[in-house]
Amino acid sequence: MKYVSFDGEPVIPQHEFFMNEALKEAHLALEANEIPIGAIIVANGRIIGRGHNLTQRLNDVTAHAEMQAFTAATNFLGAKYLQNCTLYVTLEPCVMCAGAAFWTQISGIVFGAHDLMRGFSRLNMPILHPKTILQGGILEKQCSTLIRDFFATKRKS
Amino acid sequence: MKYVSFDGEPVIPQHEFFMNEALKEAHLALEANEIPIGAIIVANGRIIGRGHNLTQRLNDVTAHAEMQAFTAATNFLGAKYLQNCTLYVTLEPCVMCAGAAFWTQISGIVFGAHDLMRGFSRLNMPILHPKTILQGGILEKQCSTLIRDFFATKRKS
Repeated sequence: MKYVSFDGEPVIPQHEFFMNEALKEAHLALEANEIPIGAIIVANGRIIGRGHNLTQRLNDVTAHAEMQAFTAATNFLGAKYLQNCTLYVTLEPCVMCAGAAFWTQISGIVFGAHDLMRGFSRLNMPILHPKTILQGGILEKQCSTLIRDFFATKRKS
Repeated sequence: MKYVSFDGEPVIPQHEFFMNEALKEAHLALEANEIPIGAIIVANGRIIGRGHNLTQRLNDVTAHAEMQAFTAATNFLGAKYLQNCTLYVTLEPCVMCAGAAFWTQISGIVFGAHDLMRGFSRLNMPILHPKTILQGGILEKQCSTLIRDFFATKRKS
């Protein structure tokens, strides 16, 4: 499907636009030699939180992109909950991050690549908040290629 | 069951001793008007990390006692993983904290009060790392009373 604006120019659909922003965060992780996963939080069309994987730099296996983004967004809002916000993340959240999303009561989660090994949805359990709408597979190829290439390079070195 | 030392003095079994330390953290949370949940991490009989619930103070719904304790322990060790460590926490971990525990590869989790509403074990899913040994119900009454009294006081005020 191709999107065009009223004057005929191609339009990037909202989900793809914001996933590209999450991909920019993933590239920041890559530059820091971290597993390239990025996340942003959007409220009313505005990015209010950003994060990328920092597990190596912080020496903390819980320092996932989503956790950084949740904290950044709540700091920005001065509120504990992320109702009316959407998380965009390049990889399907793990159980920890899905559990964290539950506590934030976030309205939407949009992820890029599916994670058949560690993604929370493999459990097929109601981990997310009942109000959270989930959508996966946005820019899946770009998101998954970035991670796959990272590990392929690591194995060679 | 009563435990006595060789000279006849009562001995506090290890799990109860360390759960009492986690309870001290829970009391620190209570003093700060936080939901009174506390956690410690033990390695080789030594406490290497402490934490208590800070969701109000940090304005962060993910700032659970366990998350603080994991970060403190990895900082102490300078290592990302918590193999050969045990988490003592006054309340059964939620899905987020159990998911975080998975990433730490912690050897043991000992909790006080069961959490039938939000505890991870209600999902009956293999969320923990396969090497993690789980035990619940240590000083359950003290741990659960502390939380129940906190909410009873909140409802009255």
